[in-house]
Amino acid sequence: MKKGNVIVGQSGGPTSVINSSLAGVFKAAKDGGVDKIYGMRNGIQGLLENKYADLKEVLKDGLDIELLKRTPSSYLGSCRFKLPEVADNEQVYKDIFAILDKLDVKYFFYIGGNDSMDTIKKLSGYAKEINSDIRFMGVPKTIDNDLAITDHTPGYGSAAKFIGSSLKEIIRDGLVYNYPNITVVEIMGRNAGWLTAAASLAKGDDCEGVDMICLPEVDFDIDKFLTKVESKKNQSQVIAVSEGIKTKEGKYVCEAAKENVMVDSFGHKSLSGTSQYLAGLIGQKLGCKTRSVEFSTLQRCASHIASRTDVEEAFIAGSKAVEAAFAGETGKVVIFERISTAPYQMITHVADVNEIANVEKKVPSEWIINDGTDVSDELVEYVKPLIQGELTQIMVNGLPKHIVLK
Amino acid sequence: MKKGNVIVGQSGGPTSVINSSLAGVFKAAKDGGVDKIYGMRNGIQGLLENKYADLKEVLKDGLDIELLKRTPSSYLGSCRFKLPEVADNEQVYKDIFAILDKLDVKYFFYIGGNDSMDTIKKLSGYAKEINSDIRFMGVPKTIDNDLAITDHTPGYGSAAKFIGSSLKEIIRDGLVYNYPNITVVEIMGRNAGWLTAAASLAKGDDCEGVDMICLPEVDFDIDKFLTKVESKKNQSQVIAVSEGIKTKEGKYVCEAAKENVMVDSFGHKSLSGTSQYLAGLIGQKLGCKTRSVEFSTLQRCASHIASRTDVEEAFIAGSKAVEAAFAGETGKVVIFERISTAPYQMITHVADVNEIANVEKKVPSEWIINDGTDVSDELVEYVKPLIQGELTQIMVNGLPKHIVLK
Repeated sequence: MKKGNVIVGQSGGPTSVINSSLAGVFKAAKDGGVDKIYGMRNGIQGLLENKYADLKEVLKDGLDIELLKRTPSSYLGSCRFKLPEVADNEQVYKDIFAILDKLDVKYFFYIGGNDSMDTIKKLSGYAKEINSDIRFMGVPKTIDNDLAITDHTPGYGSAAKFIGSSLKEIIRDGLVYNYPNITVVEIMGRNAGWLTAAASLAKGDDCEGVDMICLPEVDFDIDKFLTKVESKKNQSQVIAVSEGIKTKEGKYVCEAAKENVMVDSFGHKSLSGTSQYLAGLIGQKLGCKTRSVEFSTLQRCASHIASRTDVEEAFIAGSKAVEAAFAGETGKVVIFERISTAPYQMITHVADVNEIANVEKKVPSEWIINDGTDVSDELVEYVKPLIQGELTQIMVNGLPKHIVLK
Repeated sequence: MKKGNVIVGQSGGPTSVINSSLAGVFKAAKDGGVDKIYGMRNGIQGLLENKYADLKEVLKDGLDIELLKRTPSSYLGSCRFKLPEVADNEQVYKDIFAILDKLDVKYFFYIGGNDSMDTIKKLSGYAKEINSDIRFMGVPKTIDNDLAITDHTPGYGSAAKFIGSSLKEIIRDGLVYNYPNITVVEIMGRNAGWLTAAASLAKGDDCEGVDMICLPEVDFDIDKFLTKVESKKNQSQVIAVSEGIKTKEGKYVCEAAKENVMVDSFGHKSLSGTSQYLAGLIGQKLGCKTRSVEFSTLQRCASHIASRTDVEEAFIAGSKAVEAAFAGETGKVVIFERISTAPYQMITHVADVNEIANVEKKVPSEWIINDGTDVSDELVEYVKPLIQGELTQIMVNGLPKHIVLK
């Protein structure tokens, strides 16, 4: 029996495989002989309200773990809660550590993106200050693939697979009539264009691919954009744009279409409407039929077409975090290193969370080509291994079965 | 060798399984010993421009047929072309029959919805007038499920399966934070609410289901709608609305949001923006976080999650049309009769195309409950058999493989 208990939480926007990382943490902790494995409900925010679940009580057998790996969204619930600096509000830290002590927690795991790694950074820093022996480990997660140091993040491969598959379908659909039809598809990714770049996957022997890829890494020039669309105005086109594209003045394109843009507690603007705005502009200018499609929430929750590679790597990331914490690590995050692309070989390390928190990794400029309207073959080769394989869904009554925490 | 050749076309909006009907026509015609099997490119409109393909040349083996069954959109291309009345323009008819005679076509198959059945009606009527022995048969297709007489239409089951699966995922995603979040999901269906009603499939042991279902069959009352949303304002909600909901004055809700509504050649308005408009209203009124999701094109092209039952029935509909034409039928359409729901048993008949053309079947009022905000268990039992089973995708490089007519 391992000395001390485990607690795990999920934070930030969910992905199709964030629960697979939870399954990885749970399985490794259980196999490691931990007595109690707690799940924070709604992350650190729920923990502060003493909301947690005893995971051994709710995840009873292997089938539950398999269902968990196939369930989208965050099984434990999530939050967007930014820990204050210790100097500004030490009481929050005292409260958290009091709860952890009460539960005899010695290992704390947090599955999340940039902002969640900030939480691990602050909690592990505070533990050091007060000489606490509680170990804090981060498990990376984000569909945006924008974490530094790691080759890629769990969640990205499945979102990329959804984007590639859906775009192949939309491209077929868009070519159905014998007149030009221009579809603008809006893809998530506030500052980093990894998801939008995955639109390049659609192209192949059996698919024309998309006609343009507009990333937030490139200043968006509306006139140049319209000119390029017009140059192929006699054919149907499908154009992939990031929700986060901005003009060179730094204004989001979607802001041109909306008066009010909501801002969350991390100061992030809520973006959407870019594709609709651009489809409208194209329609006005070229007088042709246009459509706009927003993948919206679907790209982060379409677990029915998750990448098996991604699901497995997310699980591994969870279990490696436990292994590292048991070995004495704290204030670290699990990262991936790609040993080779063909054949695809990946290993894990742990890295200092300071290297990953609050840093955004963007698409490298050398992978952005054609005057910022396409991506290179290197990018396609980078993404391809991450979308390989499927997980057979557990279908009940014609629909994928999930597991729900009541 | 069968005397005379076969021609087949696809018309109207595509579905995930319209190509499975094409595969059914092709296979039955080939097995029946037909010499040439032509495919009209872009339906009757392409035919008038002498655009057709020799299908035996492009569908070479069983793998091609399996790929065809898994390829979304219309393999042959589609059109939205309304044949004039003979009295108004007989020349079009003369042109069509001249081309058919040139190709020695004796059997004409058209896969489509209401408007396409109008084409079969007119062509078979004209054939009778001029004593032509060419036989004209309709194969039903529409995600909208709005054809009269038939129990259901090929294409509906797969769209319903996409809607049910995606809503289960969106509902999980929507519950992830510990504050209320209201998602309005817009679903296709201009006048008939069958697709939106399929939102009811999401509910089960592992899913809370949607909170409201708004069909175009019911006058939409914005005040009552907002009051109902407000009554549960402390919880996250997912609301399914049809793109075609109208106020009792007959105005589309989406028209309130847009100044220009496009109209196609059949006089259909292009609808969208309903969910966005309603999400905005809810946000203004209740001050909570809202999201809008439009399933848009995805619901008619997501062949990667097609219903196996639907794919098989679509194939059967195609082959039964050929069988009937060979047996001497003309001016008919294949329809489905449900013998029993549990276990599900379905048989086919052929019916006079006059009974189906230009008639819309709506959701029966006795299946619409709770003051027009939900559907009954009878409706769920009706839809459930149609979404059963999956077709293993042929995956290449992590994405579903399609077949394309060059």
